[in-house]
Amino acid sequence: MSEAAIETPKPYTVGMVLYPGMTFLDLVGPQTVLGLHGKTLLLWKSMEPVATETGNTVNPTTTFEECPDDLDVLFVPGGYGTNDAMKDEAVVDFLKRSGKTARYVTSVCSGSVLLGMAGLLDGYKAATHWACYGALAASGATPVHERVVIDRNRISGGGVTAGIDFGLQLLAELRGERTAKAAQLIIEYDPEPPFATGTPDKAGSEVIADAMGILGDMDDQMIATLNSRAVAA
Amino acid sequence: MSEAAIETPKPYTVGMVLYPGMTFLDLVGPQTVLGLHGKTLLLWKSMEPVATETGNTVNPTTTFEECPDDLDVLFVPGGYGTNDAMKDEAVVDFLKRSGKTARYVTSVCSGSVLLGMAGLLDGYKAATHWACYGALAASGATPVHERVVIDRNRISGGGVTAGIDFGLQLLAELRGERTAKAAQLIIEYDPEPPFATGTPDKAGSEVIADAMGILGDMDDQMIATLNSRAVAA
Repeated sequence: MSEAAIETPKPYTVGMVLYPGMTFLDLVGPQTVLGLHGKTLLLWKSMEPVATETGNTVNPTTTFEECPDDLDVLFVPGGYGTNDAMKDEAVVDFLKRSGKTARYVTSVCSGSVLLGMAGLLDGYKAATHWACYGALAASGATPVHERVVIDRNRISGGGVTAGIDFGLQLLAELRGERTAKAAQLIIEYDPEPPFATGTPDKAGSEVIADAMGILGDMDDQMIATLNSRAVAA
Repeated sequence: MSEAAIETPKPYTVGMVLYPGMTFLDLVGPQTVLGLHGKTLLLWKSMEPVATETGNTVNPTTTFEECPDDLDVLFVPGGYGTNDAMKDEAVVDFLKRSGKTARYVTSVCSGSVLLGMAGLLDGYKAATHWACYGALAASGATPVHERVVIDRNRISGGGVTAGIDFGLQLLAELRGERTAKAAQLIIEYDPEPPFATGTPDKAGSEVIADAMGILGDMDDQMIATLNSRAVAA
């Protein structure tokens, strides 16, 4: 009886783009939630291991070339490596191709800027990491300071941990609220952040300065990359 | 000036145990936070790729044999594979050895039961996934229904996403609150769970039944494994 609401006939497929220097939590949050009821492909241009931001490596399951055209969800994570990925033609070309046919085109964190680089957010509202609003606007999207933004078939999350909220909302879109509610219980998502510093508004100038000292000038670098695209076009 | 509080002379090392069928989010949450200011080793008995719960694979960085004796943090994630890991002598022996010398002995989710299996939680309070309280008690620990539990040098988190709260609290122990506050801002941890179903108390019986339909009888299986240890001893 209760199982009937959980089980559904057609499994969905989520294509998750890997790249060097991605923030792995951006991807593993949504993957853990969406992986409960569908297949998650880890996509890269080859089958070689890809190093995340922390230097650890993960193995792709599928190459861009072998990725099916009819993805239910195309997903792009963020990270310090986003700017380099934006300059990688193989990545951008794959996004352009797959973004045309995927049912949902999605991202978390600076992954939204990478979607924008591929022209996939022109005229769409989107979320991104709080330190990347400038680059997101330069990419053609309208940045929205919310944790999850849904605009037609574009669904995006804010920085890093927003991927969990994003994943649960996307699961609700794909499988209904009841399934998403059970997923939230399975991952025991009843957060108790130890500090009140999760957004710049709450964190205050000293904590922002500390964070920016680690984050660096990602936003400026991505804006420069987007501007060079405009010149080349 | 503000950088002085972030930068510290001695980097710490976190040894994170991998095993087949682990829930990768249990590990990647803490790793993302702790990896900002220290080294995270991914430990396994060989250098072969290890498959997570979703079937994707990650590569160890260090074998159990090569793992340094003086870890600052020993960490164990949970997952559907915990019960098999509890029966794996190489895993349990490594935990017994490393747990004696690590400065902090830590876990998230059903990883706490694996620590208990190695005798590392006898007489300690600990947290675990809400579906694993029975097995945690059978392992010799005193289960506490909180998101993060600190008892002397044992620090444990509840289910899956509790690893993020755990990671931030542990970073505060290792590097002070100011550093942890900046880490929380970097990962934009200002959660907005879409539903009020993050714990069994809040979720209600229908959602619990749906979740248990997916989780299965993990708790009973781990209790059986712990009982067979008692007989063998």
